[in-house]
Amino acid sequence: MALIVQKYGGTSVGSVERISAVAEKVKAYRDRGDQVVVVVSAMSGETNRLIGLASEIDDRPSPREMDVLVSTGEQVTIALLSMALQKIDCDARSYTGGQVHILTDSAHSKARIRDIDAARVKSDLDKGRVVVVAGFQGVDEHGSITTLGRGGSDTTAVAMAAALKADECQIYTDVDGVYTTDPRVVPNARRLERITFEEMLEMASLGSKVLQIRAVEFAGKYNVPLRVLSSFEEGEGTLITFEEESMEQAMISGIAFNRDEAKLTILGVPDQPGVAHKIIGPISSQNIEVDMIIQNISHDTGRTDFTFTVNRVDFKRAKEILEQTANEMGAREVLADDRIVKISLVGVGMRSHAGIASKMFEALAKDGINIRMISTSEIKISVVVDEKYLELGVRALHDAFELEKEV
Amino acid sequence: MALIVQKYGGTSVGSVERISAVAEKVKAYRDRGDQVVVVVSAMSGETNRLIGLASEIDDRPSPREMDVLVSTGEQVTIALLSMALQKIDCDARSYTGGQVHILTDSAHSKARIRDIDAARVKSDLDKGRVVVVAGFQGVDEHGSITTLGRGGSDTTAVAMAAALKADECQIYTDVDGVYTTDPRVVPNARRLERITFEEMLEMASLGSKVLQIRAVEFAGKYNVPLRVLSSFEEGEGTLITFEEESMEQAMISGIAFNRDEAKLTILGVPDQPGVAHKIIGPISSQNIEVDMIIQNISHDTGRTDFTFTVNRVDFKRAKEILEQTANEMGAREVLADDRIVKISLVGVGMRSHAGIASKMFEALAKDGINIRMISTSEIKISVVVDEKYLELGVRALHDAFELEKEV
Repeated sequence: MALIVQKYGGTSVGSVERISAVAEKVKAYRDRGDQVVVVVSAMSGETNRLIGLASEIDDRPSPREMDVLVSTGEQVTIALLSMALQKIDCDARSYTGGQVHILTDSAHSKARIRDIDAARVKSDLDKGRVVVVAGFQGVDEHGSITTLGRGGSDTTAVAMAAALKADECQIYTDVDGVYTTDPRVVPNARRLERITFEEMLEMASLGSKVLQIRAVEFAGKYNVPLRVLSSFEEGEGTLITFEEESMEQAMISGIAFNRDEAKLTILGVPDQPGVAHKIIGPISSQNIEVDMIIQNISHDTGRTDFTFTVNRVDFKRAKEILEQTANEMGAREVLADDRIVKISLVGVGMRSHAGIASKMFEALAKDGINIRMISTSEIKISVVVDEKYLELGVRALHDAFELEKEV
Repeated sequence: MALIVQKYGGTSVGSVERISAVAEKVKAYRDRGDQVVVVVSAMSGETNRLIGLASEIDDRPSPREMDVLVSTGEQVTIALLSMALQKIDCDARSYTGGQVHILTDSAHSKARIRDIDAARVKSDLDKGRVVVVAGFQGVDEHGSITTLGRGGSDTTAVAMAAALKADECQIYTDVDGVYTTDPRVVPNARRLERITFEEMLEMASLGSKVLQIRAVEFAGKYNVPLRVLSSFEEGEGTLITFEEESMEQAMISGIAFNRDEAKLTILGVPDQPGVAHKIIGPISSQNIEVDMIIQNISHDTGRTDFTFTVNRVDFKRAKEILEQTANEMGAREVLADDRIVKISLVGVGMRSHAGIASKMFEALAKDGINIRMISTSEIKISVVVDEKYLELGVRALHDAFELEKEV
């Protein structure tokens, strides 16, 4: 007998039929003796419908009232799922975030969970009930309804699992797990049976949007075993583990990529203390997020070159700011290119294996792909290449590291 | 400066435009210095949409979960109305029933209010805020969401007014007050400036469905001055008062009628103690509500006749039960008629004025209307007539008592 927290997203509960299918899935776990807590999102489309109503009234509605409004979406789902469970003779009880005291700060629309009172949930579980909890929402110390921001239901599930010391937190989505890379790019991409939290964080932030990144951080912090599964297909999904648990570690877990990058270079700036801040400061102060930053060693002229990447939507603004900075600093030139992509190898195994980088560069070179930028961290190597090489590059790396094969 | 509780029903908040119009109305009161609490229903159609979703899952869903589901309707409205108020620079704050501790019993879908904690509302009012409260819903001692049943928003408003010792509770509807009778039947029916609580109770229970009857009882119990007004037109509406306040009292306030009546008579039953119970008992135990009951004096045979009315939807079932009872009691015959209606004169003034009944019977006789049954109470006289005479009878009485004229 295990205590399992399951989370079903908006697509998984998008209709009455799907809610009934979720009920059957939940009951199967309960029938084999598990205790089950289910966290659900709003039915797909519902949150947008509610936001639409609000925007008809005010294009900048009060965040407090927005939370009162959109939190009704999950409340509808918990009631319907509880009914569906009871209909098939599975005793169930629904709770809003406030009712199980998911205490958050007061940052409406992006609140953070501080505490959960698990006593009430435990008492229901001990009576053999399935407990159905509204995801995405909580309550602040004044009793006001808060929400955790889009995708926050994942965080609710993980926090609930942590508070209950659950054996596993299962996140049901429309994909059946985490893949070595996007199967639309590499048809023989392989589902990973397990991946470490750190790798998952790198994969998520690099564009493999299976799980909300805050939920992953939360799970790591509280040692909650997390599993990603499909709502619609059978299967074991992907278990997200702590590194220590894995005896044998694959060198590379997967290949992430990001199509939304743009690159800016400022040439011939004086190589002095504070130059990086002078360049990046004006960009950041306009709320433009900077991703990769590379500064190479100085030329013998006492001048250096400085390159960074931003999201493509910020490209034009960033370029204008940088051109002004270049003027002020007396830099030689600004180069700008928004037709580039980033490809990253991710794997905790690369820590202890030399030669990953050179093997990566070799594989890309063999297919004639020129590398524009390189950046490395403990568990990933990212390269920037011309946009047109994205698919070719990802496939070349997938082949070179034989990711289609089981470890 | 007055403290006013306003209640807007589903039609009054049926669209974003209407919600904005309500906000303007509320702000006008706030701007003249009043403190305003607004109680709102779900947007029209929303409750039925939610019930529809539930019925797709289970035709007898759990009452607890039904309340979790349908209570989202009012929650959407409080958020949208608060946004609309803030949009026009009127500080406002929304609360669900649970958030202002509208404590009820645990009778889901028909809960009764036990207590309201007014402190939180008062604190907001003192800060110059309009407080927007979800009608129709509360919370039981375990923290479960309850609802008061259809129309319960009226009750919420009155209970809130009682708890806050408000100066007036205003119920906004799609009619502009209480009329002497239905204007669709009598075109020159007149809006009453005031009506007593007792009269209002008789009018409501007799089919003039302007206010929920429980709300009126509640208002009477706690001495809450209640006013019925139109959401869509300007006007003073009708004030529902305590009798003592009225110096001069009209004899008759209005004419109520009920088209849903059906009549059953059992002839020649032994005139013995307990006979009424033997006849009505089996009907009541099937949850059929009995309205008028008439037993005339005994014939010299030691047998009597017994007549009562039920709602037409229960007519067939009641007739079958009565026929079985007649068999068992050795009664002579059962007569049944579902083509009848009830017309009632209502007025506290009739207590002190003789001759009302005879004037009523005379007016009906003059138009050739045969009276089938008569029943009287302190402040009303009801007659049952053939269905076809409804409009004719109501108009005859309205004319005879000159209800179109101001008192």
